[in-house]
Amino acid sequence: MRNFDEHNITEAVLGRVRNAEDPRVRQISEAVVRHLHNFIREVDPTFEEWQQAIQFLTDVGHMCTDTRQEFILLSDTLGASMLVDAINHRLPEGATETTVLGPFYVENPPVEPLGADISGGAEGKPMFVQGTVKSADGKPIAGAVVDTWHSDDEGYYDVQHYDEGGDVSMRARFLTDDDGRFWFWSIVPKYYPIPDDGPVGKMLGAQGRHPYRPAHVHFMIGADGCEKLVTHVFVAGDPYIDSDVVFGVKESLITELKPHPAGTAPDGKMVDRDYDELSYNFVLSPAK
Amino acid sequence: MRNFDEHNITEAVLGRVRNAEDPRVRQISEAVVRHLHNFIREVDPTFEEWQQAIQFLTDVGHMCTDTRQEFILLSDTLGASMLVDAINHRLPEGATETTVLGPFYVENPPVEPLGADISGGAEGKPMFVQGTVKSADGKPIAGAVVDTWHSDDEGYYDVQHYDEGGDVSMRARFLTDDDGRFWFWSIVPKYYPIPDDGPVGKMLGAQGRHPYRPAHVHFMIGADGCEKLVTHVFVAGDPYIDSDVVFGVKESLITELKPHPAGTAPDGKMVDRDYDELSYNFVLSPAK
Repeated sequence: MRNFDEHNITEAVLGRVRNAEDPRVRQISEAVVRHLHNFIREVDPTFEEWQQAIQFLTDVGHMCTDTRQEFILLSDTLGASMLVDAINHRLPEGATETTVLGPFYVENPPVEPLGADISGGAEGKPMFVQGTVKSADGKPIAGAVVDTWHSDDEGYYDVQHYDEGGDVSMRARFLTDDDGRFWFWSIVPKYYPIPDDGPVGKMLGAQGRHPYRPAHVHFMIGADGCEKLVTHVFVAGDPYIDSDVVFGVKESLITELKPHPAGTAPDGKMVDRDYDELSYNFVLSPAK
Repeated sequence: MRNFDEHNITEAVLGRVRNAEDPRVRQISEAVVRHLHNFIREVDPTFEEWQQAIQFLTDVGHMCTDTRQEFILLSDTLGASMLVDAINHRLPEGATETTVLGPFYVENPPVEPLGADISGGAEGKPMFVQGTVKSADGKPIAGAVVDTWHSDDEGYYDVQHYDEGGDVSMRARFLTDDDGRFWFWSIVPKYYPIPDDGPVGKMLGAQGRHPYRPAHVHFMIGADGCEKLVTHVFVAGDPYIDSDVVFGVKESLITELKPHPAGTAPDGKMVDRDYDELSYNFVLSPAK
């Protein structure tokens, strides 16, 4: 076929991608072509605008490294990540709600004993974190794998300090005890801007949006026979709790920090200054 | 707002991007969000599939260098470039049709005198290229800037040989003479696969598509008071003329190569072997 024009080209491209052997590849390819062409027809871009779009995506790609995933930021800030999350987590009653993974998870975090201090000596108010992991039928899960990661007192993740020689901190893996419990020490996290020195930051600026996420602690929890849970626990009262740049907040994931004076902590540790306690009890849904 | 779910998140994201100060940014941002979310709702991707999509785009970005533009290849192979081209070139009667720029144009090519041999000594059948540049009212345009670039006898562009120490060849800029004419020597180009050692090549494979473009010579022609013309001239009889991987072929852009025996060429040059002649007369549309 020759002489493609704005009216017949979409059908022509669909005709080609229908050669895909794998039916799922065929289905996704057809949908990409239809929605992409519909977008173009609606927006009616000039040639220069299309070149800018190509350059924007190229810049996003070039920003991606082992510790910076700009395409995840793009997906997050356009609400795509939360939509994919919602579609994939039509949960049973009582199961802990999910939210985005975000760009700061690192595979195979260090395994720490229960009660460890994972702050890496960073400054900030001490935080005692504790919780339980149960199955949907209310039974505690022993040996559940609890990955956690969060920002520091200034809103940065450890990986954002690696270039300056920073080490792993505020990031660890725990195994729940026989009663399905876990606990550890860290520092209270702060709200933070997503990394906004790249093309996604420019996009947010052009869209008149702030780049902030409310303070939260990430959890990824896995156990035999259960769906892997990817979620955060948000700190109540955060100034950005209702305008999270990545649309990740859910009411059921917000918890109050409980202030404690210096003294003997719930795990028996002697603490010489005030600290906060963050408690959350997780319920995993059964594996599909 | 909190508690975004698959039903309300699109409206929530639209509400944010509507803060854009520039109305065009607002319009494009809203369209991106609506079409992206509609695509996701239709395809219903698993979390793993979405991660694969992120990885695919990241790989496309990482493939981009100064001499390789993988996002243009993606846009080309999904028919997006030709659609943008069609939307932007609703041409007046008689004007030369347009087609994609492609990923191999290099800014500021060397300026050569009319009649120059731009083959750089590459092997292949000699080709005498000649044509005229006229305005829509039929008047020859003197001093029009004619950029041309094409593949060699094996289907490669010069930039694809730079890594091995290759130099500029089959790429030049000419100025038309007082009669609006230009002419130069090169070698006959061949059909070729678009660079398919990257993620776009993998995509084509998964979609059951070949990566070939029929043989052609690129032209970009500019003149005062005229729209810049970006087009190719295709060689008639090419095996891929009806299945160009980037949907770029238009009937009016196909021309027969005219074979000549060795002897005195139209420009007076003595040629000691058979050669082909490629002639095309371009008509520029008035500037908008």
